[in-house]
Amino acid sequence: MAPPDATLKVAVVGAAGYVGGELLRLLTGHPAVAEIHAHSSSSAGRRWSEVHSSLVNLPAAPRFEPVDAEAAGAWADVVFLALPHGESQRIMAAVAAGDPRLIIDTAADFRLVDCARAERTYGPHAAPELLGRFACGLADVEGARLAGADRITVPGCFATSVLLALWPLAPVLGPASAPVCWAATGSSGSGARAKATTHHPFRAHNLFAYALAGHRHEAELDERLGAWCGSRAPSCSLLTHSAPIVRGIHATVRVAPAEPVVDPNRLLSDSYAGRPFIRVLDHPPELASVVGSNHAHLHAASRRDGREVIVAVVIDNLVKGAAGQAVQAMNLALDLDETAGLEAVGLAPC
Amino acid sequence: MAPPDATLKVAVVGAAGYVGGELLRLLTGHPAVAEIHAHSSSSAGRRWSEVHSSLVNLPAAPRFEPVDAEAAGAWADVVFLALPHGESQRIMAAVAAGDPRLIIDTAADFRLVDCARAERTYGPHAAPELLGRFACGLADVEGARLAGADRITVPGCFATSVLLALWPLAPVLGPASAPVCWAATGSSGSGARAKATTHHPFRAHNLFAYALAGHRHEAELDERLGAWCGSRAPSCSLLTHSAPIVRGIHATVRVAPAEPVVDPNRLLSDSYAGRPFIRVLDHPPELASVVGSNHAHLHAASRRDGREVIVAVVIDNLVKGAAGQAVQAMNLALDLDETAGLEAVGLAPC
Amino acid sequence: MAPPDATLKVAVVGAAGYVGGELLRLLTGHPAVAEIHAHSSSSAGRRWSEVHSSLVNLPAAPRFEPVDAEAAGAWADVVFLALPHGESQRIMAAVAAGDPRLIIDTAADFRLVDCARAERTYGPHAAPELLGRFACGLADVEGARLAGADRITVPGCFATSVLLALWPLAPVLGPASAPVCWAATGSSGSGARAKATTHHPFRAHNLFAYALAGHRHEAELDERLGAWCGSRAPSCSLLTHSAPIVRGIHATVRVAPAEPVVDPNRLLSDSYAGRPFIRVLDHPPELASVVGSNHAHLHAASRRDGREVIVAVVIDNLVKGAAGQAVQAMNLALDLDETAGLEAVGLAPC
Amino acid sequence: MAPPDATLKVAVVGAAGYVGGELLRLLTGHPAVAEIHAHSSSSAGRRWSEVHSSLVNLPAAPRFEPVDAEAAGAWADVVFLALPHGESQRIMAAVAAGDPRLIIDTAADFRLVDCARAERTYGPHAAPELLGRFACGLADVEGARLAGADRITVPGCFATSVLLALWPLAPVLGPASAPVCWAATGSSGSGARAKATTHHPFRAHNLFAYALAGHRHEAELDERLGAWCGSRAPSCSLLTHSAPIVRGIHATVRVAPAEPVVDPNRLLSDSYAGRPFIRVLDHPPELASVVGSNHAHLHAASRRDGREVIVAVVIDNLVKGAAGQAVQAMNLALDLDETAGLEAVGLAPC
Repeated sequence: MAPPDATLKVAVVGAAGYVGGELLRLLTGHPAVAEIHAHSSSSAGRRWSEVHSSLVNLPAAPRFEPVDAEAAGAWADVVFLALPHGESQRIMAAVAAGDPRLIIDTAADFRLVDCARAERTYGPHAAPELLGRFACGLADVEGARLAGADRITVPGCFATSVLLALWPLAPVLGPASAPVCWAATGSSGSGARAKATTHHPFRAHNLFAYALAGHRHEAELDERLGAWCGSRAPSCSLLTHSAPIVRGIHATVRVAPAEPVVDPNRLLSDSYAGRPFIRVLDHPPELASVVGSNHAHLHAASRRDGREVIVAVVIDNLVKGAAGQAVQAMNLALDLDETAGLEAVGLAPC
Repeated sequence: MAPPDATLKVAVVGAAGYVGGELLRLLTGHPAVAEIHAHSSSSAGRRWSEVHSSLVNLPAAPRFEPVDAEAAGAWADVVFLALPHGESQRIMAAVAAGDPRLIIDTAADFRLVDCARAERTYGPHAAPELLGRFACGLADVEGARLAGADRITVPGCFATSVLLALWPLAPVLGPASAPVCWAATGSSGSGARAKATTHHPFRAHNLFAYALAGHRHEAELDERLGAWCGSRAPSCSLLTHSAPIVRGIHATVRVAPAEPVVDPNRLLSDSYAGRPFIRVLDHPPELASVVGSNHAHLHAASRRDGREVIVAVVIDNLVKGAAGQAVQAMNLALDLDETAGLEAVGLAPC
Repeated sequence: MAPPDATLKVAVVGAAGYVGGELLRLLTGHPAVAEIHAHSSSSAGRRWSEVHSSLVNLPAAPRFEPVDAEAAGAWADVVFLALPHGESQRIMAAVAAGDPRLIIDTAADFRLVDCARAERTYGPHAAPELLGRFACGLADVEGARLAGADRITVPGCFATSVLLALWPLAPVLGPASAPVCWAATGSSGSGARAKATTHHPFRAHNLFAYALAGHRHEAELDERLGAWCGSRAPSCSLLTHSAPIVRGIHATVRVAPAEPVVDPNRLLSDSYAGRPFIRVLDHPPELASVVGSNHAHLHAASRRDGREVIVAVVIDNLVKGAAGQAVQAMNLALDLDETAGLEAVGLAPC
Repeated sequence: MAPPDATLKVAVVGAAGYVGGELLRLLTGHPAVAEIHAHSSSSAGRRWSEVHSSLVNLPAAPRFEPVDAEAAGAWADVVFLALPHGESQRIMAAVAAGDPRLIIDTAADFRLVDCARAERTYGPHAAPELLGRFACGLADVEGARLAGADRITVPGCFATSVLLALWPLAPVLGPASAPVCWAATGSSGSGARAKATTHHPFRAHNLFAYALAGHRHEAELDERLGAWCGSRAPSCSLLTHSAPIVRGIHATVRVAPAEPVVDPNRLLSDSYAGRPFIRVLDHPPELASVVGSNHAHLHAASRRDGREVIVAVVIDNLVKGAAGQAVQAMNLALDLDETAGLEAVGLAPC
């Protein structure tokens, strides 16, 4: 265990977005972090609080710096990248040139190891030679395996929720298990820029599906299931929905296990025993209970004598689904207390 | 076609609940309705508007009468029952004794024809001899088959949404189709009485599943699929969720058809051609677009070369899922214009 | 009373905005309207339902036409203008050239009669000679005085709510009455275009004041108070707020009457006796009870032995505060039933 | 400054309500708190997390104890009372008998010093001899004056917001200043028990005033203004509203100062210079920016050449308006770092 003294220099690149704001919020309260540089191309020169309104409650009032990938990499011990998809891959070499102790990417750029799959899903990749160079940052599953990692890619918010539901079931999945994942996200998942689908009059009391014919985050799910299940891995259907909430993801996953599972909740409890941010409940989880925290709540039930298993899971998309998991991954990689800076229990009712 | 003159005497029994309030709202605007008696055991003597606040906007200010099943049945041409589950079956004989032209029940009491299934699902039935005496009021599917009906049972709000999604697919369903229905309901579905799960601080920004190990409305789905598909009928899994909305149901149904369906949206369009309250869209439906209307919006997509079909459907749970469908069923049974009193297009943005 | 036959040809110019959409919704259900042309510069050629999603529930699927002020004025019996501020004044002469029977403007362009005040408030006016040519469309106050009007300007949503609260008090106002109006609006008041203050993650659970140092709609209030009170008219302070609702305005007005008013609610009841869209309640009004209707609900209380009077009022900003009041004004001007097309009671709970 | 070691034993009496839950949330993260006993009459024996769902995210899973006022007072260094109004006064003597170092009451029982006023407002008092024995816990105003206090009464949430707005203006208030405070509260202010006005279908998109003829919390305001302004103190009108939010209070206060105040925002900045939880902004404050934090945000504007001053203020009703301010008062009384345990910046967007 590293000493609790605050010694780390941390850079956040892309700090004006919602994930960037959450990183700033969490890192300013982290006991090992001594100094933070927040880089933003759109907001350089502005105060953090002009962009992230609750940061006006910090004692200090720092300003954003322009994005300078090389300088960030050279100055910082840890560099978090919180950029729109496609930008990390273009600056990763420059960041890495400074040889920081740890780089954590929260975008999709390096989540897929298989280059063909990555390019089929997202188009041509600017740094294909770095695919595979990053450890998977699914922190609650990977745990101690992240110790010493120097490059980490954090799964997306949908993928995190679904993978946390599926991982305990991995041993009983087969090619015909047909996982179907109904997932609903809050509007903060669409980013900080106003758009038609997040216009308040449209979104406030609305609920709608999108990408029903196929969602690109299924690639992450399939690659991970392949890693866990090998040749018996099923392919996963992700049915994404936009809900009239701001924060959070609720996912309900249905699988037909290869053999009956009569007590799937027990399977979950055993799989996550000792993991500090996972709670396996004896009733379906409520989204509001994880908002503002790095926790995931899960519950599983079976039907048809165990031939059908349902797992429900809730996370805060900006914390466990992005910034919080990234900080947890940093803690694990640097051998800090896994929960350092992530002790907030949430804010229900909120 | 009956003449548009307002001649009908209509009684609403259980008029202080949300479905009762919607019936009053719709029937006061119905061109064929001459007079309404609203019966309520809890609110007798009070003005309608003391219970249903927007009814203060009516020109008149009528009061609730006590529940008197025999009197209602004897006075009215049409009796709507909007009572909590279990009460219709206890007073149905008394209502029927007055020989009204039409009785429409919005509760679950007479939805199931199979007595064993009904009692397995809901416990002992007080009037089992009347099971099977009621026509199924799934109005958009039944249409002209309801002409002349004198007893109608309206499907529940979850069942209505899911059945509207499944009906066009009935010809391609098989025993292995495994329909799984993720459905989310607004808080008005829990009724007019305050309770812990509808306490605003709890519900306002929450999302949670319930009854994951089995929901009693699956019995309705299975019975209906049996009627449509016969021996090849699959069994349906209904995964219900509570969403932070007031009105509406959004359901997303996934099936594995017995044979590939490449263009399922076309299947929907063809199935519902000419039906006035169904819109098959070329994109996933948005819940807010049906709030306040009797319409259902649907959209279907296929994956895996048609071996997986997804249908999304939205309805207003109090209108299409209850009061509106009941009025539509009345219109069909009495040979009135099917859309009479149901012309409102909704209120988006709202 | 004009016969109920549908004979009117109606044009809506600026029909792709929220007020335009409400006009289309209301006019398609109006018994005297035979045909509607919807003009939009941004959406010409698109279907109404592509812009106003609930209009997909109409039986027909009409398309927007380009804006052609002269053609609209020449073709229509009634022209509604629902344009952003500043545009009506530029095309009014062209519309009027066609000599339609009635022109109703829902923007601020012609609300002020005093040109100096208008230009001080909004900048140079393009058609100052037409200021004063328009009748004030505060329909619940003006009532029969609108009969025969051929040009009407409808007050804004804030002004409508506040003026309805102040009108009954006009006889007891004095120079020191100091009306202060705390008003909160829903997000639909900001229009159909997404912007930062209506971004769902920002707005969903937020509440904030704006224009605290002075709001330009105070000019409307002051001019109207001048008309009602003459030289003893006080000046009004309007404190506007954005609330996390979609539709509606809630205003709470506090005045110090020139003489004590012990029973102000009685004053309201008497003032609005017989007006079909006003309800004076014996308790503070609830916003949700007027959403979707053309009604205003009011309640007044006194403090300090009548030396302080508080009036609370609620309206739907898009209906009573814009499109509904405009249709009501049309009904009054053309001697139709005042409530024609406006019978909807609202949708609570919603 | 006391050492940061965790040595305090703290009891929370009435820990199953929302304020109690917030105290548990804040105290479990407080660096000086060694042990917490949570007492509840309704929930004794249950786990904290069964009542306060986000507390399942704590590492431990403690249970509520029954209410035992004497035991709590004897065991604890600090006793927080978070009971419904009227209960503190009945058990205060028993709590005090144990001679704890500090007692902090969050209810209204001891807020008023003037017994006649207290009984006029709330009815007969069970411990009138203790009125006046409690220091006023308006922590951001009192600051160091709370050092060494052993009995503290925390102002209510409405009073806290309004008093924070009025305090900087106290020097310029006169008998004719007529402060009028329009305040809107979230539903959590109504407590943890479901009731009609917090039923989600009713509250979700609603906004309504209450107690327009006089609110009992005005007594707190008047007593405090009397303390600040002496004989020139004006009487305050509090106009309370229920808003469709869960957490937070937004208040907008209008006063006519005895002499013109041209730059009231400067007055606010100067008055609160150095206070850690107050932010005086250059624009109207947004409620969402303080949710989950102990901060208050304020902004003032003037009109009519400074003869009218408007102050807007936002707080989290459960934190700054109750539990957070109570912990802040504890910190001040015990000479701990004022911000200890209260460092959270909030959670916008949320």
